[in-house]
This record gives sequence, C-alpha cells and structure tokens, in this order.
Amino acid sequence: MPVGTLASVKGVSQDVLEELGVQILLGNTYHLYLRPGVEQVRKLGGLHRFMAWPRAILTDSGGFQVFSLNELRKVTEEGVTFRSHLDGSSHFFSPESAMEAQIGLGADIIMAFDECTEYPADSARMRQSMELTLRWAERCRKYFEEHKEEVPWREHRGPREADKGAHPTRADQTQALFGIVQGGMDVALRKESAERTIGIGFPGYAIGGLSVGEPRWLTREVVESTIAHLPADKPRYLMGVGTPEEIVEYANLGIDMMDCVLPTRAARHGLLFTSQGKISIKQARYSGDEGPLDPKCGCRVCSRYSRAYLRHLYASNEVLAQVLNTVHNLSFYLDTMRAVRHSIALGRGARFLSEVWSRPKP
Amino acid sequence: MPVGTLASVKGVSQDVLEELGVQILLGNTYHLYLRPGVEQVRKLGGLHRFMAWPRAILTDSGGFQVFSLNELRKVTEEGVTFRSHLDGSSHFFSPESAMEAQIGLGADIIMAFDECTEYPADSARMRQSMELTLRWAERCRKYFEEHKEEVPWREHRGPREADKGAHPTRADQTQALFGIVQGGMDVALRKESAERTIGIGFPGYAIGGLSVGEPRWLTREVVESTIAHLPADKPRYLMGVGTPEEIVEYANLGIDMMDCVLPTRAARHGLLFTSQGKISIKQARYSGDEGPLDPKCGCRVCSRYSRAYLRHLYASNEVLAQVLNTVHNLSFYLDTMRAVRHSIALGRGARFLSEVWSRPKP
Repeated sequence: MPVGTLASVKGVSQDVLEELGVQILLGNTYHLYLRPGVEQVRKLGGLHRFMAWPRAILTDSGGFQVFSLNELRKVTEEGVTFRSHLDGSSHFFSPESAMEAQIGLGADIIMAFDECTEYPADSARMRQSMELTLRWAERCRKYFEEHKEEVPWREHRGPREADKGAHPTRADQTQALFGIVQGGMDVALRKESAERTIGIGFPGYAIGGLSVGEPRWLTREVVESTIAHLPADKPRYLMGVGTPEEIVEYANLGIDMMDCVLPTRAARHGLLFTSQGKISIKQARYSGDEGPLDPKCGCRVCSRYSRAYLRHLYASNEVLAQVLNTVHNLSFYLDTMRAVRHSIALGRGARFLSEVWSRPKP
Repeated sequence: MPVGTLASVKGVSQDVLEELGVQILLGNTYHLYLRPGVEQVRKLGGLHRFMAWPRAILTDSGGFQVFSLNELRKVTEEGVTFRSHLDGSSHFFSPESAMEAQIGLGADIIMAFDECTEYPADSARMRQSMELTLRWAERCRKYFEEHKEEVPWREHRGPREADKGAHPTRADQTQALFGIVQGGMDVALRKESAERTIGIGFPGYAIGGLSVGEPRWLTREVVESTIAHLPADKPRYLMGVGTPEEIVEYANLGIDMMDCVLPTRAARHGLLFTSQGKISIKQARYSGDEGPLDPKCGCRVCSRYSRAYLRHLYASNEVLAQVLNTVHNLSFYLDTMRAVRHSIALGRGARFLSEVWSRPKP
C-alpha cells in the first residue's frame, strides 16, 4: 500500500496511480484529522470522493503518529492527549474518537486505536502497554458496532455519486475494522496479544509496534512467531514495512498486506530502487549516463528518460525529479508484489524472489 | 509556448505535456548554460534527446536573464559579464558565445543575443541600446552561418536515435535563428530596428524588450506599431507575454508565437485561470466546494478533482497541488490558443474571443 498521508501520494496524480496498478492506498488519520479535518472530508462524501480515488483505502488509527510525532503526549486509560505538529494546539484521541474519525473519513479498512510500545521496553512495560491496547481494542470494537452505519456514503447523495470519485464499498456496506497485535519484542506476549485480539474478533489482523528501531533480525523473529497465531483465512497486515527485500521476505512468511513510506520518501531524496540494487541519483557519476534508470523496468520513467536527465532534475531541485522518482519507486514496489503474487499462484511461494536481492550491487 | 526553464516544465512530465497538445517548449539558455551546462547537453545529443521531448523547442539567447537576474552585470561592445545567480561565479556572454551555447543545446529555433533595454529609458539610451542590439544581431548571424553545422544531432549517433527522444529537426537540417527587434518604447526606433533587423535577414522575428514594467497600453501600442513593419510571411514572436486576455489580443494583432511563465508560475502560487475568471485556490471559500475548478474545462484536473480537493492540496503544501494546478493552467492557455487558431481558420480573426474576457468575474 503506497502511503497517501494527506489524501495524496506526494507528487503523483490519481490517474498515474491507477496506471501503476495501485489497488489500495493508505491515508493517515492523524494528518487528515488536523488537515482538512474529519468533518470536512465527511461533508464531501468521505475520502474516496474527496480525493477522487475509486479503489480501496485503508486509514491507520492515528496512534502511531501520535506516538512518533509528539514528544509531549500524555497517555491515560481514557486515551492520548497530544499537540498538533502544525500549530501546537492540544488534541485528544480515545479509542472512541479515533473510531469516530475513521468512520467519518470513510476508508474501506480502518484500524483499531492502539498504543505503539516504544523500543526498547522492559517486560512490565511491554505487558502493561499490551493490556492497554487490548482494552482499547474492545472499546474500538464496541464503538464501531454501535456507529458503523454512520459512514459518509450513507448520507451523501451528491450529483457526482456515480462518477470516478465513487467509493468501491457499496452503499449498503460498512467498513472493515482490523485489530492490531502488540506486545513489544516478547514473543510470548505477542502470542497472548494475538489470541486475545482474535478473541475480541476482527475481520483482519495487523502486527503493529515493529520497525520502531529494533534490529531487522528481531523484527523478522517477532513477525514469524506472531503470524503463526493469526488465522490464515483473514488478512494479515504488517504495519510500516519495508524495503523491497523485506516485503518479499514477509510475504513469504504469510503477510498479506504491508505499507511503507520508503518508496515515496526515498524517491524524494533521490534514492531509487532498481533490479540492480539501490541508486542514489544525485551522484555526479550519473550526469552523463544515457541509460535508463533500470534496464529491466518498463515503467513510464524508465521507458522514456535517461539517468542523466533524472540526475539533472534532482541536482537542479526540479519538482519533476520528485514526481518521476516516486513513479519509478512505486512501480518497482508494485512490480515486486506482482511477482510475489505470481509466484504464490504458481505454488512456489515468494521465497525464490529472495535470490533477486542477493545479487551484487552495481 | 510553455516555459521549461531547466529542460522541464516544473512539475509536469513530458507525456502529460504531449497529451495537453504542447507543440513547442521554451528553454532558457542562461539557466541551461549554468546547469547542467551546454557541453553536457551537447554530449547527450542536444535538448530534445536530453529531456526526451520529440516536439519543437525554442531557446532564448540568455540575454533577458542576464539583464533581469544580474544586478552587477557589465555591458561592453564585446558582450556582457555577469555573475551566476547560483554561486556568484563570473561568466561572459557575447553574441558569438550565446550562439555557440544555443547551437550546442540544439533547439529548433534559437534567438539572437540582444540587449533588453530597461524601462524607463531616455531617447539617447534607447537608440544606443538599439544600435548595440543591431551590431550584435549582425555578429550572431555571422557566427551562426559559420557554425550552424555544429548542431549536436550531426555528431550524435547513439542507440536511442530513433526513439522518443529523437529531435523533430531532421539530421540534415540546421536551426532557425530569429532576430529580435528592440528600441524601447519609441515607435520610431522600433520601426527602424525592425527594418534594419530585416535587412540583416532572419527566418523569423521577435519583439523583445516589452513586459519590462511598462503599462499595458504602452505594450500594446508598441506591439501594434512594430508588427506593421514585420513581414507577415515569417513567424512574428512576442517575447514574455502574457495573460490569457493578452495572448488573444496579440494574436489578433498578428503575433504568431508567445511565451510566458505566467500559467506555470501562477499555478505554483495557486492562481488559476478559468472560463469564469481567475481563482485563487488558497481561499477558504473553496474548502467545501465540490464543483470542478472550471466547469467548461475538459482537462484531466477539471474532469476528476473538486475545488475542495485542490484547495486542500494547496493549503497542505502538497506537491500534487503544483502538479495539478500547472496542468490546468497550461490546458487553459492551450485551449485559448486552439480557439484562436480555430477562429483564424474560420476567417474571423481572434477578436471575438476578447469578449470572453470581458465577462464579469465571479
């Protein structure tokens, strides 16, 4: 899932995302709550209609941003008080208000409001945080069941209802609320969190609280042990992951969904993923390079422009650098996931693809 | 002609420009000379190949930027010494070196190196400046005739010769060098400049030295009086103009070509041109506006997105704001020029279109 924080994948228009084969986008509730505001999006018919995106959308709960963008947050049983990174104004998210916000935004998949346990944390802290997330999950589930009919598309019957901006979820449907497994880096706690979250009952499960600074081997260990406790017949979503190598690796472990800012954020910094390894397009070595960015890539960037041109755009701080770099990186990620799905369809799993990444870098 | 200063129309990819119907782009010699450098572009086969743009390109002479971006320039009979706006380094443009740069960049149409007379200027200064431009025009013509075979596509026989990046000018062709009429705001001097520039002989003529701070009625007066002295069977190019109203007005006077940063620069500042007048999309009044930017526009922006979404993107400082705003403004300008051409083809001239702009603004 490419990340479209503020209802936009930075620099890329929705028709290009469609051409790239993007099936689902992630929007950040925290950011959208601050700008343009949930009520504004609701009044305009929900996120799909607001951003003219007819395919699927998932919103996170806002929990991760509250924890990662706010030094001064205050967590109580009731919820989290935090300050806006924009103007310092004070706000409060509870499981109930996070649900209310996500129902108002109207994505297809919404996430329970959890506490993302910091890393490192001791055993007592990991358990206490996990228990809080479980109590919050119950409250999310309860609020959602009582308010799930309040999606914006029920009340919105505007003139553009049937056009491109129409949402993929049918008018008579509600959203899917996913639960989130926490438990820090303790595999026993992760097992308990998975089982008790399943006990509450959700149509899909996410593994949260990873990619928070721990070494990669530990991420993998926690994912591998946790996924064993999640039902294979429901979507399993690993949050905030990862590099091309990692998404292949985790798909191979059974992960069905991932999101990460890496392809889009790296693109904005001139870091490009190719079949021959990573390329930092800002380097002077590419200034006279007439070849395509990735000879094995068929995206609209690689089929038209040279490395020399992309390097010039980046070095000259041209906005088109960000646009083209992002299109290529997304194309590379989506191609990777298409290869994973193809491999799975052939019954080979995604493991063989790992070999792709062990090639020597240029 | 949309302006692609650094071999890119800021934020818009070349395939979108093609879809918009852009037939010719303007590149700025001054900027390209500094970054990535003429030799770099020449080695990569010239501008068309470098930026993967198969349609026409015009480069200016660098003269206008030297005058407008350099407070510390020093003009002598030989040429102009100026400092880079990037790093303060010292550079020198003469008629000969400006020709050399433009031949190396390899656009289809290149411009004589002129002195853009400042406004206001007294009679003596206007004549002295005009005489200098005429002497420089002779030197440009001479250098061009002696070096016109040195275009980059003669020596470049790379593997991508026949692909999208191929230039529209055939391998056995040379560039077209246009002369520039100066003479300040004095219509008698303009007449003399036109006649003596025609005496030197060029395949096209530009009117330079306007849009330099003078009132619009004066611009129009000078254009109208100057164009009467330019041959109708050769392209007549008015440099650095203008608003949608102005391009209709000047086309009606007989101007064939115009360039202006207005549609692209205004777009980056949220100023959008529509059939109902100008819109400043940053205004809060549009935050809940579900309508398209311009109900009469069929561009990819107006057919998909609402004003509310465009306002949100601009207010949130999203890069997509710049991308979409630029696409719309270019579409509006190109539609305007298509309407002008259609009107001319019908034998009605462009005058009727002026009525479009006299409507009350919303």
